[in-house]
Amino acid sequence: MSTPTKIYLDESEMPTHWYNVVADLPEPPPPPLHPGTHQPATGEDFAALFPKALIEQEMSAERYIDIPGEVLDVYRLWRPSPLFRAHRLEKLLDTPARIYYKYEGVSPAGSHKPNTAVPQVWYNAQEGIRKLTTETGAGQWGSSLAFACAQFGLECEVWQVAASFRAKPYRRTMMEIWGGAVHPSPSGLTEFGKQLLAQDPNHPGSLGIAISEAVGEAVEDPTVRYALGSVLNHVLLHQTIIGEEALLQLAKVGETPDVLVGCTGGGSNFGGLAFPFLREKLAGNMNPTIRCVEPAACPTLTKGEYRYDFGDTAGLTPLMKMHTLGASFIPEPIHAGGLRYHGMAPLVSHIYELGLVEAISIPQTECFEGALQFARTEGIVPAPEPTHAIAAAVREAMACKESGEEKVILTALCGHGHLDLAAYETFLSGKMVDLDLPDSAIQEAMQNVPQIEG
Amino acid sequence: MSTPTKIYLDESEMPTHWYNVVADLPEPPPPPLHPGTHQPATGEDFAALFPKALIEQEMSAERYIDIPGEVLDVYRLWRPSPLFRAHRLEKLLDTPARIYYKYEGVSPAGSHKPNTAVPQVWYNAQEGIRKLTTETGAGQWGSSLAFACAQFGLECEVWQVAASFRAKPYRRTMMEIWGGAVHPSPSGLTEFGKQLLAQDPNHPGSLGIAISEAVGEAVEDPTVRYALGSVLNHVLLHQTIIGEEALLQLAKVGETPDVLVGCTGGGSNFGGLAFPFLREKLAGNMNPTIRCVEPAACPTLTKGEYRYDFGDTAGLTPLMKMHTLGASFIPEPIHAGGLRYHGMAPLVSHIYELGLVEAISIPQTECFEGALQFARTEGIVPAPEPTHAIAAAVREAMACKESGEEKVILTALCGHGHLDLAAYETFLSGKMVDLDLPDSAIQEAMQNVPQIEG
Repeated sequence: MSTPTKIYLDESEMPTHWYNVVADLPEPPPPPLHPGTHQPATGEDFAALFPKALIEQEMSAERYIDIPGEVLDVYRLWRPSPLFRAHRLEKLLDTPARIYYKYEGVSPAGSHKPNTAVPQVWYNAQEGIRKLTTETGAGQWGSSLAFACAQFGLECEVWQVAASFRAKPYRRTMMEIWGGAVHPSPSGLTEFGKQLLAQDPNHPGSLGIAISEAVGEAVEDPTVRYALGSVLNHVLLHQTIIGEEALLQLAKVGETPDVLVGCTGGGSNFGGLAFPFLREKLAGNMNPTIRCVEPAACPTLTKGEYRYDFGDTAGLTPLMKMHTLGASFIPEPIHAGGLRYHGMAPLVSHIYELGLVEAISIPQTECFEGALQFARTEGIVPAPEPTHAIAAAVREAMACKESGEEKVILTALCGHGHLDLAAYETFLSGKMVDLDLPDSAIQEAMQNVPQIEG
Repeated sequence: MSTPTKIYLDESEMPTHWYNVVADLPEPPPPPLHPGTHQPATGEDFAALFPKALIEQEMSAERYIDIPGEVLDVYRLWRPSPLFRAHRLEKLLDTPARIYYKYEGVSPAGSHKPNTAVPQVWYNAQEGIRKLTTETGAGQWGSSLAFACAQFGLECEVWQVAASFRAKPYRRTMMEIWGGAVHPSPSGLTEFGKQLLAQDPNHPGSLGIAISEAVGEAVEDPTVRYALGSVLNHVLLHQTIIGEEALLQLAKVGETPDVLVGCTGGGSNFGGLAFPFLREKLAGNMNPTIRCVEPAACPTLTKGEYRYDFGDTAGLTPLMKMHTLGASFIPEPIHAGGLRYHGMAPLVSHIYELGLVEAISIPQTECFEGALQFARTEGIVPAPEPTHAIAAAVREAMACKESGEEKVILTALCGHGHLDLAAYETFLSGKMVDLDLPDSAIQEAMQNVPQIEG
């Protein structure tokens, strides 16, 4: 085996900038709109939600943005993250393809989410903010924000989708270990939550609802701001350190990818890995096929419409032009909780519309079959979200076996599944099913999306 | 910060031998005895349990033993493991001490256990063995053996202490992901298990009982062998790659430890880190204080007697001279399941008797207080077992703050706590207590230990 199993970078080689793909796109992405006036949103429209520095990043067209030194100090707790060559999986599949995966599960919270949680907290701390509120589903994002708040001494208050809050008490414990306060959503703490609980005291909640509650709480107090774990430009920006590192690591072993696959929920893991490679593709330095992989039960890119919609259920956020299944769409309770979002990052949606990336959807049983092959060879038990990327990589590797092509496949293993083992239990006991998503469910939700030109 | 946060070794720098401390001790450890004749056990007495190669290692006095190439290939999935400088914890404690921790939670199973599971399975595979049986408590060892068996195509059958089997279903799922079959112990599958279930259908089980069941199953079939996850010489041998790597890593930053602390249950994590440093100490190359840290509820070294005792409850294993609380001793249900063993590795016990290492015990609430300080600064949520080592490191660092000494403290963070979050929930909710261990409980168990000269 000439390539090592793990390709590391020294801490001194860690990138010191994030990459803003907006600078290199053939046309700029459509702007967000004010939810009331439907006019392009200004920085002030975001001022109650986010600190100035993050709003600037959200709207920036600068190609590179420096990572602050104190953020780099925290990143060093787990970054640079390793790039693995999947020697043992390749052997099992008997494929001539070479599979590489960038592993983000080495972060304290176990996923890529701290890459943006840490700078978000730091910028808020610089502007004197006392507390951050946020939503979380399975808990990956909430625990990442709690970890980051612990690093810079901010309070952290998390609304967790009630169904997950009840089903996954251990993610809540993890948030509390790092000092976070966690509420089930809908909660009795906000007006919107109270309304929903009055309708159904056992309301299971959704990400859209939890966002509404966390946003509602933040806008009422000038020392409190809100933090979002995906979707927005500045979040995808912070995640690009994944792709920047992967570029350096592949260069160390003299490889360029022929195919890059990443799972997409809100789009930040995918954007984080893919955008630096897209830059190189646009510059003519390499020519990888870049492919989004989404769950068949929440097929935002492959079945959603590209139009303006709200980021949350209550309609508090600015309107964003994105692929959406409708802000009122409640996806099936698949195990990949992090991919159950009605929309797709505006930047990923835009790039998809420009034809720069492809998209496919995969049903969850195929994903867990791939995950089992992966765990029994590579060892790591993947989170349910990246099992989609693994299944896509396995498809590609098997196609190479058919064709004899020695393609280089790159993917992101964006987190471990140590807190998602109930999903594996369901799969191993034969109880996991692939539910058909009727087009009528999407059509119904789309009827609630506001009619906006453009 | 001049020292990096993480000190890595390249895969090409990974040690290719294990270190056998027996070669350098001023006197050899007392031999194990045959359980029937009480005469020194021969290799044949172990032949029904272990493959020849491991029995040779168990009895070897060779200083270095080569690590087979296929074992190194699997080690590379996570090794060399990182050595961290705890910059952020030091800052919180405001100590002049420099704290380093070797992190073994990067392995697929999340602890140091795969370091020995992988070679044990490989040697069994070389001798044509079809299946391995073992016991597990919290599940760290059982999942490590299942992972290793998946790598070399062996079957794996695990008896898990019934109380843990019921309380921690996710560790069982992890074993099943890697293809292991898991039974609660006592089980209806062995005669000994049936007897105990007849007495109490809800028997909580113990490690000693689970060992008896797994051993009983192995000795009946020549294609089946047993694997033990701690205590024995060959297990401690395999773990020495931890200390060998740590020596190389500290040398890279020009440091030698003044104090080395490690948690001790069966002794393999401690021996793995400490023995290579003990070699350097005996050779006069450095002079660290080396200290075992055990739970106050299971104080094998600090309160147990040094005498011959069985490794299991049913009395099937050879007699080993070790610090013991009595093979029938059932420790309090502390959260550090991996430290709840009645005995201590014969090698660690011998070295302790020779005065080469010290020992202290720490109650679990102090351990979890240290763990919370650690998680909120260093990020990683530690397993309950290494919280003992962390608490000891914090004690040492605070003593340095008093004295102004700039000591170098080295410890092993032998696993993460992702599957042990219920323990943190108990601690955070204020429900964790430190139970007094009455001397009478130890005295009672010691009455059952056989009376043997020497």
